[in-house]
Amino acid sequence: MVHNFFAGPAILPQKVLKGASDAIHSFADMGLSLLEISHRSDQFVAVMDKAEALTRELTGAGDDYAVLFLTGGASSQFYFTAMNLLGSDETACYVDTGTWSTKAIKEAKQFGNIHVAASSEDKGFSYLPKTFDIPSEAKYLHITSNNTIYGTQYQNMPDLDIPFVCDMSSDLFSKPIDINKYDVIYAGAQKNLGPAGVTLVIIKKEILGKVNRQIPTMLDYRTHINKGSMFNTPPAFPIYVSMLTMEWIKDLGGLEAMQKRNEEKANIIYGEIDRNPCFVGKAASEDRSRMNVTFLPTKEEYVAPFLAMCAENNCVGIKGHRSVGGFRASTYNAMEASSVQVLADTMKAFAQKHA
Amino acid sequence: MVHNFFAGPAILPQKVLKGASDAIHSFADMGLSLLEISHRSDQFVAVMDKAEALTRELTGAGDDYAVLFLTGGASSQFYFTAMNLLGSDETACYVDTGTWSTKAIKEAKQFGNIHVAASSEDKGFSYLPKTFDIPSEAKYLHITSNNTIYGTQYQNMPDLDIPFVCDMSSDLFSKPIDINKYDVIYAGAQKNLGPAGVTLVIIKKEILGKVNRQIPTMLDYRTHINKGSMFNTPPAFPIYVSMLTMEWIKDLGGLEAMQKRNEEKANIIYGEIDRNPCFVGKAASEDRSRMNVTFLPTKEEYVAPFLAMCAENNCVGIKGHRSVGGFRASTYNAMEASSVQVLADTMKAFAQKHA
Repeated sequence: MVHNFFAGPAILPQKVLKGASDAIHSFADMGLSLLEISHRSDQFVAVMDKAEALTRELTGAGDDYAVLFLTGGASSQFYFTAMNLLGSDETACYVDTGTWSTKAIKEAKQFGNIHVAASSEDKGFSYLPKTFDIPSEAKYLHITSNNTIYGTQYQNMPDLDIPFVCDMSSDLFSKPIDINKYDVIYAGAQKNLGPAGVTLVIIKKEILGKVNRQIPTMLDYRTHINKGSMFNTPPAFPIYVSMLTMEWIKDLGGLEAMQKRNEEKANIIYGEIDRNPCFVGKAASEDRSRMNVTFLPTKEEYVAPFLAMCAENNCVGIKGHRSVGGFRASTYNAMEASSVQVLADTMKAFAQKHA
Repeated sequence: MVHNFFAGPAILPQKVLKGASDAIHSFADMGLSLLEISHRSDQFVAVMDKAEALTRELTGAGDDYAVLFLTGGASSQFYFTAMNLLGSDETACYVDTGTWSTKAIKEAKQFGNIHVAASSEDKGFSYLPKTFDIPSEAKYLHITSNNTIYGTQYQNMPDLDIPFVCDMSSDLFSKPIDINKYDVIYAGAQKNLGPAGVTLVIIKKEILGKVNRQIPTMLDYRTHINKGSMFNTPPAFPIYVSMLTMEWIKDLGGLEAMQKRNEEKANIIYGEIDRNPCFVGKAASEDRSRMNVTFLPTKEEYVAPFLAMCAENNCVGIKGHRSVGGFRASTYNAMEASSVQVLADTMKAFAQKHA
């Protein structure tokens, strides 16, 4: 068995993969593959309806929110959100917690004034700012909830009194969320949700329509709200697999169960990092991500032999991102604690040999 | 066996569906699903490289062209092309051949002056204009090569002396193309290429960089050219299936073989339409599409019983688009002549009973 620690596209539940494969053979007793049926067919419309219903059930999003399944990834939402929410003479606040939020800031600057409300760049993005400088005129605050590259994650989101836009690409559905805190949540699918190629957007409808800007039809959230994510042909297969994943989450007990599962795994791996003389955690302890565990070798010469030992033990995707170095183990919802234990045991064995 | 006449997402070759399903079980001997591996892995990079190489091989596109696999569909390219190619005080020409080109015109108008160089709206888009009114200052001409809704298709593309942008969403790879005629070709995958969720763009590199407009990073063709369609996570699975389809096309003899295959099917179905007293073709004879065959009943009362007879004979997707009515049979590359014969035989049997 291969233990899949890739940061994304990332591990999916075996049950979901089986369902995806079955649908390619024959879908909904049609004698056709899911890949070759009209998105207007009753059978696929039912998939869209169920994906939306499950999103609402898991997050508690009511009718005041729209649920959209859009093409592109979070990188598309970086400009999408600003284009739809920020007037050219208005100000939005962004918290800079590294690579992804830095990119979000860059794109938003094309549409209005961007105020960086906080940044952890001073310490290489190894921690998360908890206080924010928010000018009274700000239209919204944007935060990246989990930072895949630096291995940081907000464990508690602040209560804000301005609209809150949150990039949850890498931790949506990993723990319960208080939907009422958020005005926009967006998440590329390829972490806890499904294969690459679809982005889930949950958006409070009342915040739209306030910007006086001409927006291409496909880039206006209202187009997709009015057409139930079916203005044009949606990425049908990634949506179907996402729906299967949400069913799997629900069957296992919903977001509370995911939280418990993810905390168990975090305890195993961070516990090992903290007791092992060959490794040291990268992120500030209180901001450690339950999704992406970043750690460094205490000696640079450990890198190659540790990666080799991981490969021997079928742990793949352990090499750290090039901008951080060291190691990264991504432990998304679908990963079993037993796989994390294999990695922790590998670290133990490494220390016995090298420390 | 079900005969799949859906207009899109549409029929894919059985061999491609098997390959897609296999890759979901385990991909490239990794012991992991294609859906859960990093797009930066050697194994997936090889898929991207092969998809590009096959595109070049089938179309003859040389190094002066870039080959991109982007998210979204043709609907995204409607604004993408104008945003990248048309200055706000410049003029572009569009040929209006119905729904899709009408939408392309609408989106392009946000970025510059749009001149409709020809239109077939006067006859309900049932034919294709062959002469165009092109002002000397025009930056490019945009044509939709095949119109899924009206069932029209340019059998020969004109030689133009301005840059030519062509939406080939529904007939790319259905016949040989003279790549040198085109500056931009774009095609949503879900007809002859793969599942919904990816768009193939073939673009002459020299036409880019001439517009003085701030473009979001993700909406700038140059971003994706510079990063080999890997600036962000690409829609990996739709790209993989597209690659499998291109392999299938190549194995069958390339675009010449596809043309022969498609003409054989067109002869069967149009031959039946023309001799059958219960049906009449919708599109002008010389502009009949080899991809989407539109036909009307000679009496309105034929609609329901003919659709019922199609269903009995396992022919699905025959109902015409709501804006045209009647019937539509889409006969993309993957459809076998034997399936088209089943439909023609159904029409024969219908006439024997009702005419």
